Amino acid sequence: MRERMSELVHQKQDEICEALADVDGLSFREDTWERDGGGGGRSRVLQDGRVFEKAGVNVSVVEGELSEKAARQMGGGTHIDSLEFWAAGISMVLHAQNPMVPTFHANYRYFERGEGDEPGSWWFGGGADLTPSYLFEDDVVHFHSTLKDACDAHDEEFYPEFKPWCDDYFYLDHRNEARGVGGIFFDNLNDRPADELFGFIESAADAILPSYLPIVRRRRDTPFNRHHKRWQQLRRGRYVEFNLVYDRGTKFGLRTGGRTESILMSLPLTARWEYDHHPVEGSPEAEMVEVLKNPRSWV
Amino acid sequence: MRERMSELVHQKQDEICEALADVDGLSFREDTWERDGGGGGRSRVLQDGRVFEKAGVNVSVVEGELSEKAARQMGGGTHIDSLEFWAAGISMVLHAQNPMVPTFHANYRYFERGEGDEPGSWWFGGGADLTPSYLFEDDVVHFHSTLKDACDAHDEEFYPEFKPWCDDYFYLDHRNEARGVGGIFFDNLNDRPADELFGFIESAADAILPSYLPIVRRRRDTPFNRHHKRWQQLRRGRYVEFNLVYDRGTKFGLRTGGRTESILMSLPLTARWEYDHHPVEGSPEAEMVEVLKNPRSWV
Repeated sequence: MRERMSELVHQKQDEICEALADVDGLSFREDTWERDGGGGGRSRVLQDGRVFEKAGVNVSVVEGELSEKAARQMGGGTHIDSLEFWAAGISMVLHAQNPMVPTFHANYRYFERGEGDEPGSWWFGGGADLTPSYLFEDDVVHFHSTLKDACDAHDEEFYPEFKPWCDDYFYLDHRNEARGVGGIFFDNLNDRPADELFGFIESAADAILPSYLPIVRRRRDTPFNRHHKRWQQLRRGRYVEFNLVYDRGTKFGLRTGGRTESILMSLPLTARWEYDHHPVEGSPEAEMVEVLKNPRSWV
Repeated sequence: MRERMSELVHQKQDEICEALADVDGLSFREDTWERDGGGGGRSRVLQDGRVFEKAGVNVSVVEGELSEKAARQMGGGTHIDSLEFWAAGISMVLHAQNPMVPTFHANYRYFERGEGDEPGSWWFGGGADLTPSYLFEDDVVHFHSTLKDACDAHDEEFYPEFKPWCDDYFYLDHRNEARGVGGIFFDNLNDRPADELFGFIESAADAILPSYLPIVRRRRDTPFNRHHKRWQQLRRGRYVEFNLVYDRGTKFGLRTGGRTESILMSLPLTARWEYDHHPVEGSPEAEMVEVLKNPRSWV
């Protein structure tokens, strides 16, 4: 499984970056890095492009020894004595220039504790979610439908479980609002043979481009003005708040000495915080916030 | 002491806001708020002014019951059984428009657990620190000298203790650099009669304007270009990282249901994250980073 997962994430990174560079016109910069303690990664970032303000697609395959504290906070095999771990994953965040194009995030990973041969000592995790500044219902329905199809092909119980999990996870308590319009999120997935779950992860990774690129093509040339851009920047501020205050991957990465630049490539190029900003009642901005405060069913 | 401290922070807020509004030309907006569970505050913010991009000066006088977890994490009277607390403080962050004007932060507070009559059940905390984007040594020396004088008037051992404490506290582990050029920081201060310490807090609060305003006047009209502004925006990104990832007051406030807009008024109006940005060797930007990586003695 280690070999298959490692191959999958690298292959998906190639495919995805090629497609995104094709859409944008600019190419990705690549950095390979090694982790003190074992393993490393390949980070690819496209910055200030024609379509994307900042697009980061990272893979990492890391191994080593967890601290006692990190081991306790780790999902999956909390009953496992070994502090050894192995993990491979792909993680990407796409911030577009046009405020009508939503921000996209996806992350799929495989984890082992010890040799990964005890029950509960290996698992999959991940998900994909969308963060628009402006609500286009068609886009959100397309996004969720594509993810649901990828889930349903493997188990019709996946989407009904992973959709609310996503809403729960990407939630800013101090703002009483969701980060975006959700998608799917799951962790500690190991309730059937690893082979079967790998097949699901493959399908989910295959759904990344079809779930998002049609939205980019549809919205990338929508006219916008300074008012729209300012609202996008305020929403970017909330994105930063979520990632730095709540996101477990970000906090885990920074605490365990991950490569800071690869972890924080998820932050937008620019963001804005206005004191006590409230959108005008009945405006498109207020409509967006309403959906963030009351997550909906989309399919 | 509750009454004296409450009076002090309100009076200082008035004085400071009047002086800042005078320098800027714009006035502060004021919001008073009440806290579920007891007490409240008065927040004042000046946004997008001529001199200040965002200036926030808050006071709060709050009381209530701590959760067991919050009580454990609280400084001071960890041996105190009571979960009741009372706190009054002033907290301010000033982000200027001109990249040559440093960001200023100060915070002075008084805390009681229970009735505050057991040994160790009350204490003072606070400090003031400076975060420039560009290094002007004269400014930093002026800032530290003014703080040192305020300290020395009460105890010559204060500054030598509080200066390194500030360097330690405002440090971004994941960046291996300090947030700024420091100042003073202290917590759990209760090693002598409360009267004497109140006198020190008064002096420290009196030093806020003299430590910072001369620097503002000296640098507010310094010419700058897009390159300087971009560097300021990148430094603002680091400021956001510190406040959201490390700052205890921010984390405590967000977790205990403080008023989010008052807590996050510390964030700049705008910030920027470029992937893997490094200043050119020998540049003023590189000189700034060098000092952040190796905190100096300034007086």
